[in-house]
Amino acid sequence: MLSKIETAIRRLNLPSQPEGLYEPIEYVLSMGGKRLRPMLLLTAYSLYRPDCERVMNAAIGIETYHNHTLLHDDLMDNADVRRGMATVHKKWNDNTAILSGDTMLLIAYRLINSVAAPRTGEALELFTESAIKICEGQQYDVNFETRSDVSEAEYIEMIRLKTSVLLGCAAKMGGLLADAPAADCETLYAFAEKVGLAFQLQDDYLDTFGDPAVFGKKIGGDILCGKKTFLVHAAVARMNVSERDELLTLLNRTDLPAEEKIARVTAIYRQHQVPAACEARIAALFEEAEKTLSALSVDAAPLWKYAETLMKREK
Amino acid sequence: MLSKIETAIRRLNLPSQPEGLYEPIEYVLSMGGKRLRPMLLLTAYSLYRPDCERVMNAAIGIETYHNHTLLHDDLMDNADVRRGMATVHKKWNDNTAILSGDTMLLIAYRLINSVAAPRTGEALELFTESAIKICEGQQYDVNFETRSDVSEAEYIEMIRLKTSVLLGCAAKMGGLLADAPAADCETLYAFAEKVGLAFQLQDDYLDTFGDPAVFGKKIGGDILCGKKTFLVHAAVARMNVSERDELLTLLNRTDLPAEEKIARVTAIYRQHQVPAACEARIAALFEEAEKTLSALSVDAAPLWKYAETLMKREK
Repeated sequence: MLSKIETAIRRLNLPSQPEGLYEPIEYVLSMGGKRLRPMLLLTAYSLYRPDCERVMNAAIGIETYHNHTLLHDDLMDNADVRRGMATVHKKWNDNTAILSGDTMLLIAYRLINSVAAPRTGEALELFTESAIKICEGQQYDVNFETRSDVSEAEYIEMIRLKTSVLLGCAAKMGGLLADAPAADCETLYAFAEKVGLAFQLQDDYLDTFGDPAVFGKKIGGDILCGKKTFLVHAAVARMNVSERDELLTLLNRTDLPAEEKIARVTAIYRQHQVPAACEARIAALFEEAEKTLSALSVDAAPLWKYAETLMKREK
Repeated sequence: MLSKIETAIRRLNLPSQPEGLYEPIEYVLSMGGKRLRPMLLLTAYSLYRPDCERVMNAAIGIETYHNHTLLHDDLMDNADVRRGMATVHKKWNDNTAILSGDTMLLIAYRLINSVAAPRTGEALELFTESAIKICEGQQYDVNFETRSDVSEAEYIEMIRLKTSVLLGCAAKMGGLLADAPAADCETLYAFAEKVGLAFQLQDDYLDTFGDPAVFGKKIGGDILCGKKTFLVHAAVARMNVSERDELLTLLNRTDLPAEEKIARVTAIYRQHQVPAACEARIAALFEEAEKTLSALSVDAAPLWKYAETLMKREK
């Protein structure tokens, strides 16, 4: 299925002119990645109908949208590298990132709207509402950077908006386009939303505790930039006031050698059993996701198998 | 009709949180303006059906989209002021302009998709294709800034994409949502596209030859920044090689006092009968628009009257 998605992306057949607009879009879409969202959409659809090609445009539409958000987020975060390659605003410039990014969002709508299904209008509505929530999540993420009193609940709600909502949207869209029963569509959404949360927490976990030999980027990036990931929340919940202040001060330091800062924060995490707490939380969310899925009116095995491969990842 | 549009925009009822996302959107939408695009949509719709309120969301959706493009364009052009007020990236920051701008595009889709009409899907498709063309127009505009050999035809095609296409889209969408005959929908598009071209050429004209007492901004802005407007193309078409080089060199100069640069370029325009040539071109386009409209199956008087008020503007 993944290779079918890659083929469909290669065959998108974008116009060649104006080159300055479409070349960066081809560049971003060719970077690869897990293609998680189209995989979820197609797997959910395939629970009901065998003709996946029929909704392939919606699948790569969601992927195009996701890459639009990465493009604009990278510009906002001033990130230089994505998947080992220069980001669009680095390789071209800021204005290119804005305009090609805007165009990707429109191409996403074109692709989704092109699917001839009775419930395409509903799928578009779901997509729009999800994308608005993702903008809200991004805004909360920005707000949280300058706040020191963000609670774990607020953090979880932010990553739900920023990440999980789109996974829920992808799975539910697969159901909608397959004309699945309404209750199944809601189940698909709830399931993928939970998997998405688990996935994002796992992202936070791997950034510090991943295996450097398999993890794609350098270990400890979040610690270096003092990001308040789930690990910080898990640690703080296990600390007294002075330990908490010590950790937060350490995270904000920019004068330490990178290796030392990473080693010291990681040691504190281990001392407070943060890895185990984090693993338990991820496992609990994943178990909830499995329970949610049991309400489906059809055999959910292919979707569950796909979710399991996601959770076994080490990068 | 204009006051109904303003009321609908005020009643949009955007969420209050996160404030950093929605406050800039309210700010931009409350800035006013001619509301040209919703006016065209509603006037076109009203030729077929009396219940304009039914499609009001599409009208303010198109206006929200238009303001999204202004927000991102102002950021890309690094413009400080819009309609006498600070632009979003000046009042807030670049990231706010990107993210609130993205959200406005999504709200536009939400609004258009919310209209319960048999041809809403077609309207969305038209909107998406138009918005993609507008991105292409913006990219050509960027490309042209660093090219000295742009032809008049290329310039006209660029402003067609950047401006006229959305006017065509608005008028045709009014027809589509009123379930007008297919031929009428095409006529509405062709009519508004021509009016849009005339309107944009008039913009170029007024920027240099407008009455300073009524024109909203300072006269001569385009000359000062050396913009290759239609006036430059009209002048160059009437010049020999050395006159052309003299004009282009003068336009690129940044060492002259503003008043002197404006006075010298304006004198050259007058010497080569540029105002008359420009007026004639605008009048011809407007006449073409009128002829186009005569193919409509219904009485087009309200639409024609509205177009006339647009062409009589002095700002």
